[in-house]
Amino acid sequence: MIKIAVIGYGYWGPNIVRNFSFVEDADVVCVCDFDSKRLETVNKLYPSIRTTTDFHEVLTSPDIDAVAIVTPVSTHYELAKRALQNGKHVFVEKPFTATGGEAEDLIALAERKNLTIMVDHTFLFTGAVKKIKEVIQNNLLGNLYFFDSTRVNLGLFQHDVNVLWDLLPHDLSIMDYVIEEKPMAILATGKAHLNGYEDTVYVTVFFSNNMIAHFNINWLSPVKIRNILISGDQKMLIWNDLDPDEKIKIYDRGVDVENRESIEELLINYRSGDVWIPKVEPLEALTVEANYFVDCVMNNKTPINDGYAGLRIVKVLEASTQSIKQMGKMITI
Amino acid sequence: MIKIAVIGYGYWGPNIVRNFSFVEDADVVCVCDFDSKRLETVNKLYPSIRTTTDFHEVLTSPDIDAVAIVTPVSTHYELAKRALQNGKHVFVEKPFTATGGEAEDLIALAERKNLTIMVDHTFLFTGAVKKIKEVIQNNLLGNLYFFDSTRVNLGLFQHDVNVLWDLLPHDLSIMDYVIEEKPMAILATGKAHLNGYEDTVYVTVFFSNNMIAHFNINWLSPVKIRNILISGDQKMLIWNDLDPDEKIKIYDRGVDVENRESIEELLINYRSGDVWIPKVEPLEALTVEANYFVDCVMNNKTPINDGYAGLRIVKVLEASTQSIKQMGKMITI
Amino acid sequence: MIKIAVIGYGYWGPNIVRNFSFVEDADVVCVCDFDSKRLETVNKLYPSIRTTTDFHEVLTSPDIDAVAIVTPVSTHYELAKRALQNGKHVFVEKPFTATGGEAEDLIALAERKNLTIMVDHTFLFTGAVKKIKEVIQNNLLGNLYFFDSTRVNLGLFQHDVNVLWDLLPHDLSIMDYVIEEKPMAILATGKAHLNGYEDTVYVTVFFSNNMIAHFNINWLSPVKIRNILISGDQKMLIWNDLDPDEKIKIYDRGVDVENRESIEELLINYRSGDVWIPKVEPLEALTVEANYFVDCVMNNKTPINDGYAGLRIVKVLEASTQSIKQMGKMITI
Amino acid sequence: MIKIAVIGYGYWGPNIVRNFSFVEDADVVCVCDFDSKRLETVNKLYPSIRTTTDFHEVLTSPDIDAVAIVTPVSTHYELAKRALQNGKHVFVEKPFTATGGEAEDLIALAERKNLTIMVDHTFLFTGAVKKIKEVIQNNLLGNLYFFDSTRVNLGLFQHDVNVLWDLLPHDLSIMDYVIEEKPMAILATGKAHLNGYEDTVYVTVFFSNNMIAHFNINWLSPVKIRNILISGDQKMLIWNDLDPDEKIKIYDRGVDVENRESIEELLINYRSGDVWIPKVEPLEALTVEANYFVDCVMNNKTPINDGYAGLRIVKVLEASTQSIKQMGKMITI
Repeated sequence: MIKIAVIGYGYWGPNIVRNFSFVEDADVVCVCDFDSKRLETVNKLYPSIRTTTDFHEVLTSPDIDAVAIVTPVSTHYELAKRALQNGKHVFVEKPFTATGGEAEDLIALAERKNLTIMVDHTFLFTGAVKKIKEVIQNNLLGNLYFFDSTRVNLGLFQHDVNVLWDLLPHDLSIMDYVIEEKPMAILATGKAHLNGYEDTVYVTVFFSNNMIAHFNINWLSPVKIRNILISGDQKMLIWNDLDPDEKIKIYDRGVDVENRESIEELLINYRSGDVWIPKVEPLEALTVEANYFVDCVMNNKTPINDGYAGLRIVKVLEASTQSIKQMGKMITI
Repeated sequence: MIKIAVIGYGYWGPNIVRNFSFVEDADVVCVCDFDSKRLETVNKLYPSIRTTTDFHEVLTSPDIDAVAIVTPVSTHYELAKRALQNGKHVFVEKPFTATGGEAEDLIALAERKNLTIMVDHTFLFTGAVKKIKEVIQNNLLGNLYFFDSTRVNLGLFQHDVNVLWDLLPHDLSIMDYVIEEKPMAILATGKAHLNGYEDTVYVTVFFSNNMIAHFNINWLSPVKIRNILISGDQKMLIWNDLDPDEKIKIYDRGVDVENRESIEELLINYRSGDVWIPKVEPLEALTVEANYFVDCVMNNKTPINDGYAGLRIVKVLEASTQSIKQMGKMITI
Repeated sequence: MIKIAVIGYGYWGPNIVRNFSFVEDADVVCVCDFDSKRLETVNKLYPSIRTTTDFHEVLTSPDIDAVAIVTPVSTHYELAKRALQNGKHVFVEKPFTATGGEAEDLIALAERKNLTIMVDHTFLFTGAVKKIKEVIQNNLLGNLYFFDSTRVNLGLFQHDVNVLWDLLPHDLSIMDYVIEEKPMAILATGKAHLNGYEDTVYVTVFFSNNMIAHFNINWLSPVKIRNILISGDQKMLIWNDLDPDEKIKIYDRGVDVENRESIEELLINYRSGDVWIPKVEPLEALTVEANYFVDCVMNNKTPINDGYAGLRIVKVLEASTQSIKQMGKMITI
Repeated sequence: MIKIAVIGYGYWGPNIVRNFSFVEDADVVCVCDFDSKRLETVNKLYPSIRTTTDFHEVLTSPDIDAVAIVTPVSTHYELAKRALQNGKHVFVEKPFTATGGEAEDLIALAERKNLTIMVDHTFLFTGAVKKIKEVIQNNLLGNLYFFDSTRVNLGLFQHDVNVLWDLLPHDLSIMDYVIEEKPMAILATGKAHLNGYEDTVYVTVFFSNNMIAHFNINWLSPVKIRNILISGDQKMLIWNDLDPDEKIKIYDRGVDVENRESIEELLINYRSGDVWIPKVEPLEALTVEANYFVDCVMNNKTPINDGYAGLRIVKVLEASTQSIKQMGKMITI
C-alpha cells in the first residue's frame, strides 16, 4: 500500500486527489494547501484524509511514500527536491520544471535515491493517443512529413505563465510519445495582447530528418479547436479531440512520385482511398495514470512519462521562450 | 468597346477568356498560346476569336487595347513590359511578378503611359471578402489581435514554384485588402518533401502595431481546409470558404480586462454572446472582376487590385522566400 | 422548508436526489427503493438521509411534505394517488401516467386537496427550450408550417416500454410548451425488431390549423441525433441539442407567394438572408426545475408542467400506441 | 450508331442533350420543344442538331432510333406510346408515368415490339449508390431493420405536382435498386401550405419481412438535407450525399440480443467498433447512364432501370398520393 500526499488543491488538485483515492493499492493520506478554505472542502468530501497548510510537515512525514505536486511550475523544483531528499517518490504536474537544469537535478537525485519521478502528461493515457502511438509504431503512416497541431480557445488566461507554458506541454508530450525522432531546433513567434504574457504563439520544430512540426496555440479564438494532423508518405491521420464520436480519422491518401531523376519530368500522382475511423477506447486517462504511477512505484518500473520525458518537454519550452523573446530566432536544442 | 487579347490558355486561361467574353463593353479578339492543340479548343468554342502562337504579334497588334497575361509568373514581367510599351493596358495573373523590382518597373512604366495595371486577385471580388471588408471597415471587430489563415489540401504540386508562390498570394491579397495596417517584417519556415519545392510552409507576419498574422499552407493535407480567423477585441470572425451555406460567422465573444495597473490584480472577464452569420452574396468573382477591369480602363479609374497591390504581395513573397532559405530568419520589409 | 421523499433510486433517481439536495428551501429526508444495495449508496453519499424499502411508510409519514416518484410508469398512478390522499405534493417522472384516465384521476384528486402535481418535463428548463419559446412567442417565425423532430440513437432498449414511451415524451412536452395549438389527431407507424417493443417509430400529428408535426424516433441508429426543425412563413429554426456551441440557428429564409388568385400564375419567390445563433444560457435544467417545484409548492403556484401538461402528453402517447397497433390508423384526440 | 431525338429542353433537357452528345455510338440528331427561344439556344450551342417545335415529326421520323422524353410527367404516356408504336426506343424522365396502368401499357407495347425502355433514375449511376448496392449485396449490413431517408430543402416548388412526385422518385428508385424486398403497403401524410400541392410529406413503407422504410421530404426546410440511413443487424450505413468527401459511412455498431426465451431476462448488448468510409468513385452519373442506354439498345440488354423499375416506383407514388388524400390510410400495393 502506497501512502500519498497531495500538495496543491487548486484547479487540478481535486482531480488528482479523487483519482488516487480510487487506486486500490494506494491511500491518499494527506492534502496540503496554503488556502485553508480549500482544505475545508477536502475535509467535507474526504473526512479520513488529513489536511495541512504546512508543506514541510508533508515532505518530512515518515508515513508518506509519495508526493503529488500540483502547484504552480515555479515551485515544482523546490518541492520535488525536498520530497526526493526525504525518500519520497514524486508525481509532478506538467510542465515538470521551470528550467532544464532543474529537471536534470531532480532526475539525478531520484536516480541516486532509486526513486520514481512521474510527470503528469495525462494525454498519454487517453485512448486516442494510445491509438495514434499504435498506428505510428505499426508504420501505417510511413515516413512522416509533418506533425501539425492547433490548440486554441477563448481563455483561460494564466497569471504567471504565457500560453506556451500553459497549453504547449500537452502537444509536446504527445509528440514526444508518438514520434521517435527528437527535436533539433526550435523557432517561435508570438504576441502578448492583454496582460504581458504571450496569448498567441506559433512554434516550428525542426528535426534531423525530413519531418517538421508546427504548433498554433492561443487564448483568443472564439471557438475551441483541438486538432492534430500527422501526414506521412503512406497514410495521413487527423485527430479531432472534440469530436465525441470520430476522434481519429486515417486517410489512405497521398502523393506518389515517379521518376525522381529530373525534376522537370517528375510525375506526381495523387492517391485517394478509403478512410478508417478506428474505435477509440473511452478511457478515464487520469484514472489509468494514477494506477500506473502506483504500479511503477511498487514494481520499480520506469514510467513512459518519467523525468527524462519531462525534461525533453521543458527543453523545448525553454528554447521556445528564448526564441519568442528574440523575435523568432532559431534556437538549437 | 475594349479589345482584349489573352496570352496563355492553360489551367486558368479558359476562365479568363470565358469571363471577358461576357463583358458587355469588351471583345476578346485574340487568344495566344504556345500549344496549338489548346488553340484548337478555342477555335471550336469561340469561332470568332483569332488564335495565334506568336505573342509578339499580339503585343504589337494595333487593334488590341488590353492584354490579359495568364502565363507562369517568370514570364509576367517581359510580357507585361512589352504590352505596356505598346500602349496596352494589362491584366496580369497573380502573383504579379517574380520580384519586387520587376513590379516597380511595370508600375512606373504604366504611370508614364497612363495605362491601367490590374493583378488578378480574384478573391477580392467574392461576396465573402466584400463582407469581411465591410465588417472590418465598420469597426465591428475592434482592434485586431491576429489574422490567422490555414490553406491546405492534397496537391496540386507545381513544377516551377513552391507552395508559397502558389497558395499564399490568395491570403496575402485578402489580408492586404481587408486590413489597413501593412506588414513590417516576415518570418517563414518550411520543408520540401518531394520535388525540391517547399510543400509545407508556415509564415508569421509582424506589424508595427499589436497585430500578428500567420499562414499555414501546404500541399500534403488529406483534407482541404480554407479557414481564416480574425480576432479582435470587440468581436471575432471566422471565414470557412468551403462551407456552402455559412461561410462567415461573427462571434460576439471576447476578453475584457479590468484594472491594468497591476498585472497580479488584473481581472480578466470572458464575454460570450450571439453569433451572426451574415448572408454572403453568391457572386461570380471572376465575372465581377472582368467587368471591373473594363470599367477601370474605360473610365480611367485606379483598381483596388492595381500594380501597387500586386507589388505589396510580391514583396511579402520575396521576403518569405528569403526567410525560408535562411531557416526562419526574420526579414524586414 | 419542504421535506421531500424520493421513491425510486435507479437510473434517474440519483439525479433527483442530488438536485433537490441543493435546493435551499427543501430537505431530502428519505429515499425509498426496493433494492437495498442502492440504498447503501445513498447512505454513503448522504449519511443524513433516511432510507427505506417500505414505500407505505414514506407515503404515510407525517413529516414528509412532498414525494418525488422516480419509478417505472406503470407504478406512477398508485404511488401518486396514495401520496396525494395523504396530503403530499407530488413530483412525477415523465411520462406522467400509463393512461389518460389515471392522469385525470390524479389531477382531480390534487385539485380537491389543493396539492401540487409537477411532471418531470426536464427539457422545459433548458436554456434552449426557453429561447425557442421566446422566439415563437415573439412571433419571429410567423405562422408555423411544421414541427419536425428526429431523436434517434443506439439503445438504451427498455424492458417495459417501447421507444414511444421512452423518447417521445421529451418531444411532446417541448412541443406542448412552445406551440400554442394542440394536437387534434395522431397517426403512428413502427416496428419491433428485437424484444417485442417497438424500437423504430414514426408519428404524424395533425392540428386544426395548417401546421403538421412529425417525430422520427428509434433505438437503432449508429449515430445519436437530437434535431428539431420548426419552419414558419417568416423564419425557420433548427435546434441541434448535441452541438455544444451553436444549439439554435434561426434562418431568415422562406418562401413568398404572390398572386394567389390563380394557381397557374402563382409566383413563388425564395428569400435567403442572415442566420442568427442566439446565445443559449447553459442552465442546469434539473436544478432549475427542482427549485421551481419547491417554489410552486411553497407559493401555491401552478407549474407550467402541471398535471394537465402531463395529461396532454399521455393522451398523445396513448393515441400513438393505439395507432401503431392498428398499422397507422388515424386516432382523433 | 444510334440516332437520338430529345423532346423537352426545359430544366433537365440540356443535361440530357449534352450527355448523349458525348456518347461515342450515339448522335443527337434532333431537339424538340414548344418554346422556340429554347431551340435558339440549342442552335447556338449545337449548330449540327436539327430543332423543331413539332413532336409529331420527331415521333415519326424514320431517321430516329430512340427518343428521350424530358417533359412533364403528364405527357410521358402519350409521347412514349407513339414513339414505341413508331419503332423507337425510349428514354423517359422520372417518374415514368402518371399512373401504373400507363406504365403497364408501355411495358407491354415495348415487349411486343422488342424495344428498350429506360427510365431516368440517374442516382443508380452514382458512385455512392453503386457502393451501397455492393455493401448490401455482400451482406455487410446483415438483416435490415430500416431504410430511412430525409430529402428536404427550400423550394423549388413545382406548379404541376406535389413534393411527392418531385422528390420521392429519387429515394424510391434508390431503395428499389439496393433493397431486394419489395414494398407491400404504403402510408403517407402531408400538408399543402402554399399553392395547393403538398410541400411537406411523410411516407412509411411496409414490407412482408421485418424491415420498414420511411421518407421525410419537403420544400420548406431552411437547410438542404440529403441523408439516408440503412440500419441492419450486422452493420449500419449512413449516406450524406452533400458531404463532398465522406459520403458513405459504415458503422460497425449494433445490438446483440441473448436469451430470447423470456423477454424479461433478455440481455441486450451494444456493440461499437470502427467506422469505415469507403472511397466513392466520382462518376458523372448522367454520362454513365447515357452510355448505358446506348449499350442496352445496341446489344438488346435489359436495363436495371427498365419499364418495370419505373412501374414499381409509380405504383408507390400512386399509393402514397391516395394515402395522403385519405389522411394517412394504409394502401396495399
